[in-house]
Amino acid sequence: MCVQSMPDASPAKWHLAHTSWFHEAVVLPRAGLGYRVFDESYSYLFNSYYEALGERHPRPDRGLLTRPTVAEVRAYRQHVDEALAHVVSQADNATWSELAPLLVLGIQHEQQHQELLATDIVHLFSCNPLLPAWQASNPAALKLAPEPQALPRWIGLAPGITSIGHPPADGSSDNFAFDNETPPHQVFIAPYEISDRLVTCGEYLDFIEDGGYNTSSLWLSDGWAAVRANEWKAPAYWLTPDDPRGAFGATSAPTEGWRVFGPHGVRALDAGAPVTQLSFYEAAAYANWACARLPTEHEWEAAFDEPGMREMLGHAWQWTRSSYDPYPGFKALEGAAEEYNGKFMVGQIVLRGSSAWTPEGHARHSYRNFFPPAARWQFSGLRLARNVS
Amino acid sequence: MCVQSMPDASPAKWHLAHTSWFHEAVVLPRAGLGYRVFDESYSYLFNSYYEALGERHPRPDRGLLTRPTVAEVRAYRQHVDEALAHVVSQADNATWSELAPLLVLGIQHEQQHQELLATDIVHLFSCNPLLPAWQASNPAALKLAPEPQALPRWIGLAPGITSIGHPPADGSSDNFAFDNETPPHQVFIAPYEISDRLVTCGEYLDFIEDGGYNTSSLWLSDGWAAVRANEWKAPAYWLTPDDPRGAFGATSAPTEGWRVFGPHGVRALDAGAPVTQLSFYEAAAYANWACARLPTEHEWEAAFDEPGMREMLGHAWQWTRSSYDPYPGFKALEGAAEEYNGKFMVGQIVLRGSSAWTPEGHARHSYRNFFPPAARWQFSGLRLARNVS
Amino acid sequence: MCVQSMPDASPAKWHLAHTSWFHEAVVLPRAGLGYRVFDESYSYLFNSYYEALGERHPRPDRGLLTRPTVAEVRAYRQHVDEALAHVVSQADNATWSELAPLLVLGIQHEQQHQELLATDIVHLFSCNPLLPAWQASNPAALKLAPEPQALPRWIGLAPGITSIGHPPADGSSDNFAFDNETPPHQVFIAPYEISDRLVTCGEYLDFIEDGGYNTSSLWLSDGWAAVRANEWKAPAYWLTPDDPRGAFGATSAPTEGWRVFGPHGVRALDAGAPVTQLSFYEAAAYANWACARLPTEHEWEAAFDEPGMREMLGHAWQWTRSSYDPYPGFKALEGAAEEYNGKFMVGQIVLRGSSAWTPEGHARHSYRNFFPPAARWQFSGLRLARNVS
Amino acid sequence: MCVQSMPDASPAKWHLAHTSWFHEAVVLPRAGLGYRVFDESYSYLFNSYYEALGERHPRPDRGLLTRPTVAEVRAYRQHVDEALAHVVSQADNATWSELAPLLVLGIQHEQQHQELLATDIVHLFSCNPLLPAWQASNPAALKLAPEPQALPRWIGLAPGITSIGHPPADGSSDNFAFDNETPPHQVFIAPYEISDRLVTCGEYLDFIEDGGYNTSSLWLSDGWAAVRANEWKAPAYWLTPDDPRGAFGATSAPTEGWRVFGPHGVRALDAGAPVTQLSFYEAAAYANWACARLPTEHEWEAAFDEPGMREMLGHAWQWTRSSYDPYPGFKALEGAAEEYNGKFMVGQIVLRGSSAWTPEGHARHSYRNFFPPAARWQFSGLRLARNVS
Repeated sequence: MCVQSMPDASPAKWHLAHTSWFHEAVVLPRAGLGYRVFDESYSYLFNSYYEALGERHPRPDRGLLTRPTVAEVRAYRQHVDEALAHVVSQADNATWSELAPLLVLGIQHEQQHQELLATDIVHLFSCNPLLPAWQASNPAALKLAPEPQALPRWIGLAPGITSIGHPPADGSSDNFAFDNETPPHQVFIAPYEISDRLVTCGEYLDFIEDGGYNTSSLWLSDGWAAVRANEWKAPAYWLTPDDPRGAFGATSAPTEGWRVFGPHGVRALDAGAPVTQLSFYEAAAYANWACARLPTEHEWEAAFDEPGMREMLGHAWQWTRSSYDPYPGFKALEGAAEEYNGKFMVGQIVLRGSSAWTPEGHARHSYRNFFPPAARWQFSGLRLARNVS
Repeated sequence: MCVQSMPDASPAKWHLAHTSWFHEAVVLPRAGLGYRVFDESYSYLFNSYYEALGERHPRPDRGLLTRPTVAEVRAYRQHVDEALAHVVSQADNATWSELAPLLVLGIQHEQQHQELLATDIVHLFSCNPLLPAWQASNPAALKLAPEPQALPRWIGLAPGITSIGHPPADGSSDNFAFDNETPPHQVFIAPYEISDRLVTCGEYLDFIEDGGYNTSSLWLSDGWAAVRANEWKAPAYWLTPDDPRGAFGATSAPTEGWRVFGPHGVRALDAGAPVTQLSFYEAAAYANWACARLPTEHEWEAAFDEPGMREMLGHAWQWTRSSYDPYPGFKALEGAAEEYNGKFMVGQIVLRGSSAWTPEGHARHSYRNFFPPAARWQFSGLRLARNVS
Repeated sequence: MCVQSMPDASPAKWHLAHTSWFHEAVVLPRAGLGYRVFDESYSYLFNSYYEALGERHPRPDRGLLTRPTVAEVRAYRQHVDEALAHVVSQADNATWSELAPLLVLGIQHEQQHQELLATDIVHLFSCNPLLPAWQASNPAALKLAPEPQALPRWIGLAPGITSIGHPPADGSSDNFAFDNETPPHQVFIAPYEISDRLVTCGEYLDFIEDGGYNTSSLWLSDGWAAVRANEWKAPAYWLTPDDPRGAFGATSAPTEGWRVFGPHGVRALDAGAPVTQLSFYEAAAYANWACARLPTEHEWEAAFDEPGMREMLGHAWQWTRSSYDPYPGFKALEGAAEEYNGKFMVGQIVLRGSSAWTPEGHARHSYRNFFPPAARWQFSGLRLARNVS
Repeated sequence: MCVQSMPDASPAKWHLAHTSWFHEAVVLPRAGLGYRVFDESYSYLFNSYYEALGERHPRPDRGLLTRPTVAEVRAYRQHVDEALAHVVSQADNATWSELAPLLVLGIQHEQQHQELLATDIVHLFSCNPLLPAWQASNPAALKLAPEPQALPRWIGLAPGITSIGHPPADGSSDNFAFDNETPPHQVFIAPYEISDRLVTCGEYLDFIEDGGYNTSSLWLSDGWAAVRANEWKAPAYWLTPDDPRGAFGATSAPTEGWRVFGPHGVRALDAGAPVTQLSFYEAAAYANWACARLPTEHEWEAAFDEPGMREMLGHAWQWTRSSYDPYPGFKALEGAAEEYNGKFMVGQIVLRGSSAWTPEGHARHSYRNFFPPAARWQFSGLRLARNVS
């Protein structure tokens, strides 16, 4: 639980301590009920990026913290849990109305880290030449392997002004949204068509076998540079037919043909499952190859309730053709949570939807996930769109 | 003319050869009038990034080409010029209608490199501890030092649907636009106010002296990381009062107080001149400090013809709060020019307007310049905007 | 036990597995008694640098191996131990005479890793801002804190030809030497004086307080570059009086003045203890400052049995002024152990003696330890020498 | 003359300015004849590494100095030359006896830079895909292409004590030596054999074709890492038979088979010429392959006057198996020249002899050249030695 596989990923122990710390640093100070900080040094160790909350341990060095131990971090979590339970049962109405929005934020924050915990463990295991299986029989993995897919259908939408975004959270857990989804605003969208489902592994394999990774004209310039610098030949956790790793050590994993590593270990490529572990560059190149394009995040959201749309939530995050810019009129949260989203609004691309590893109920039609365009360790795939001329 | 100061900049000789090559590789092959390539190796040496036109010399190594010599490159230019003159005078109507758009593109391309030539020379000279003056008396430098400025005025715009962008170029030089400005399309814009003029060096100095570079809460996360990693304390070519370089060697440059290096060498800071050499991060942090924000590129374009707007063109490129994404319905040029713009549409920020070093007549209301958010060697400043609540 | 703090250090689990593998790969194949390899993948995972024994896991990624688990590695060790016990009890005389030298080599190899295990754990803990104590009460730590030292005495040696080195190991454990100590050979040594004891922390503090780390003329060129690039101000694990880490978290460590971190956690600087955690560059600069020099490895060895010499073994490794070159007539071991020492004979400096953490009986007068000149995570100090004019 | 091809190499203009500065900074201040410094900034710009002589321009940035111009640097040289002529003609005996050693040192220093000027220009040209010829008809190049060689002969030397090194320079130009060659001292050398001539290109090609660059067991560990990291397949300027560069552009260079680039441009490999452009790692691996070894620097020097020895001076620098450590009793020069040699005595390997590009009369039997083991841009080859058992 202690190892960090790359600067962008965090150890399991760190996720546990950091989500505890978030409640300790952001929620509990507002409760005013005599909370005692568990350990003065933990704020330094487990603050992620909140400049206003003080100096912190460098992100790339999170894996060096063999102390505090897992047992100590579990005791920390229990201490924070008990304090939160105390606050929930004791808070008067005035305190509660101030506290509830932060408590909900803390829970939503933890849900985000639950998915990151999965993606980071899978990344760590992907660095091990044994390619061990983490959760071979988890139901979430099964969602990734549906029945064979019919051909995708194009669903057309008429031009017009649409309302995009979400009203600010009001503190109830029913109506939560992050600040980056706000405020709701009007957008004019030209007519377009969008696919009813995600691109599958089988379709993506066609792109590979048609020379997609060798055809510069399909790629954005930065994408082509990434392909060459990193020698990308397939999505992040795919094993080419000549990759010896599948057969390394004594496992029951398949050893021939295209295979895919994931939470479930190494499995034969499932042609009908949604492709994941794509960078934005790969998603955009695939769309180009398919004589289509990625939808903008507005187009994605506008199509959310359209009849016939499938796999919008719960299968794979979907790269859009929208950079992660602030919405018109965007205002960050106030106080400690001010740094939650707004300061990351440059150099990243919006993903919409959610994945099989996103906690139930966490995502919604207006949810804006974001990652740098080269990121490949998320459960990130794509859905196609195209212009109507 | 041979030296390269960083991978993003190019030697003067290379600019001269590359713009010649662009005509040789993109324009002349279509003319069908028996053009003889000057030297077979030049396509390898002076192709910038056109994958479809073959392998090329690595960008960071452009400064290693002490051969061909300047004299040889000048002969190359003369050879190409003569061939172009021959084509212009001899082409029949059918050839001309195909050729004219490419010829115009070649000229516009060269205009872009004329400005890059200036920014790259100034960057090179900025790396020399002597800080030599390049063009101490050029009129373009004088535009940077206007009379003292009045306070900026806010100009308000009503909400509504606006047409943004430019029709595709039709081959005449009167109606040129790059493909990234096309197609024209409808955008809904909420009400906003925009400043009638650019932010000045004096105003930016207030930001510095108020601790702008030490206040993390003003900055985007990547911006704050850049400030700390590069120890930024002011715009790129500003000399702090304790910088010894101004007084190095025997020059007539001022040696005390805040000073600014540029094409004109080292001069005393001119409080009324538009601030330039800013990264996007600095522009965004300044706007934050000023309780305002950067305009989106749509807002900038919608205000272009608004009465009272000043310094839109010809003073400094203006960072917007818009990532460089494709317009709805965007289609790249066909043929060799396909790679001109579209493949760079990720990871960059749009700048609008033009600078004192942009060739006369090159820019327009719909012009989209773009650079990565950390770039500081362009004549890049900002104009403020704000929401109307 | 799984974490790797830098590419040069290894996780505790890896040391345990690697020393087991060394016996499995180098010793057991010669025994011919039907040994069954524990896991085919372990040779890939735990081979350190033996090219002849196949491909291996990259050194900087040893910390990514969360599988096999510690329990699995302990089972591996037990499997190998049992096989070795079987071999020792069953081998006939012919097998034994071939096997014994390898078995002794395997044990000597493991002793080397026992010390590296300590230095690597201490380095890992030094990266933790809590600076936890590993073995606060280990007797080896106590050796580092002797009674106050008298002034060092210079011991003079006459010029002449001396025999340096050790006869090749004969397979008995009484007469072991590594191949790099062989063959014995004649060396002419000019007259010199050598200090009877090691340089202490108190003496080294004088060097610091006299501006040693700010005086370029005392340093080798590469050393001065290292001082500036790494901002060295003291030996690796020293805490300056203004370092806040000693007081971080709730410990009983001293929080004021110069302090030293080590296996024992943070303690007040002990002026009489030998200074350790020095790079060669620092040792050489100190000697320069003290108007002396480091002894050559020949001088060190020639003085080994000289009456009055103290602290030759068991306190700290001692940097010499000898690069790690092969002895005249050097021949590497044959077979799998060929790569043990010889291929590292470039770019490194010889250290003589042994440290408080070297296993009892492991070192000897002819022992040649070696590290790159910038290494500071070993228990490495120095002894002075000087010319006799 | 302005371009720098890598941090280890310097522009031609810089060599010219630096050798002028050396006289200005080290020689002329001692003359006391009213010398006027040419430009105060040049000491900053053209000091190489003399800490005692003040701050200086960073070495990797020497190629950014497009100012001062070549004409200005030539005027600088003329200014210094005239001052030196004045000093030589006017100095009284007392001044002269102090000045002469420095003047000789300045001249010897300039001779060293004359060779570096050649190696640096050739390196720069080697980075140009046109591989232009610098001095196609220079006689020094011709020395590299002698008549076909007979088989090498082994010359045996008896064991014993030998005197190595050179007395300190006495200020006359007849008896000059650098401080690193001093003092003369006794060394005991075991019996050995040394080859009467250098290894040829033809012999080295045998090593390549026998798989030398694919056989890890021949290499030192750092050498093997360098081979793989840099994908070395031959000496630095060799063109493999499938290298397209020889045929690039319109030249008269051969385009087939193994070819060698050098001051003379691209030529067919001359099997009888001494191999050069080797790193120490390659020289050591070749010797290993040839069942021999490199001589120590002592062995090389002891064999200098041995009858039958050839190609000791004037063909190629010869890597030895000696790290560049100080001689017993070594004392650096005093004053400004203190930093000339001593501070580089770590991490480098001694080369003996001299090359076809070393100025006539510069080298001698005791001369110690030194470079890091991976350096390949010098005219560096090897001579074999072997033990006598």
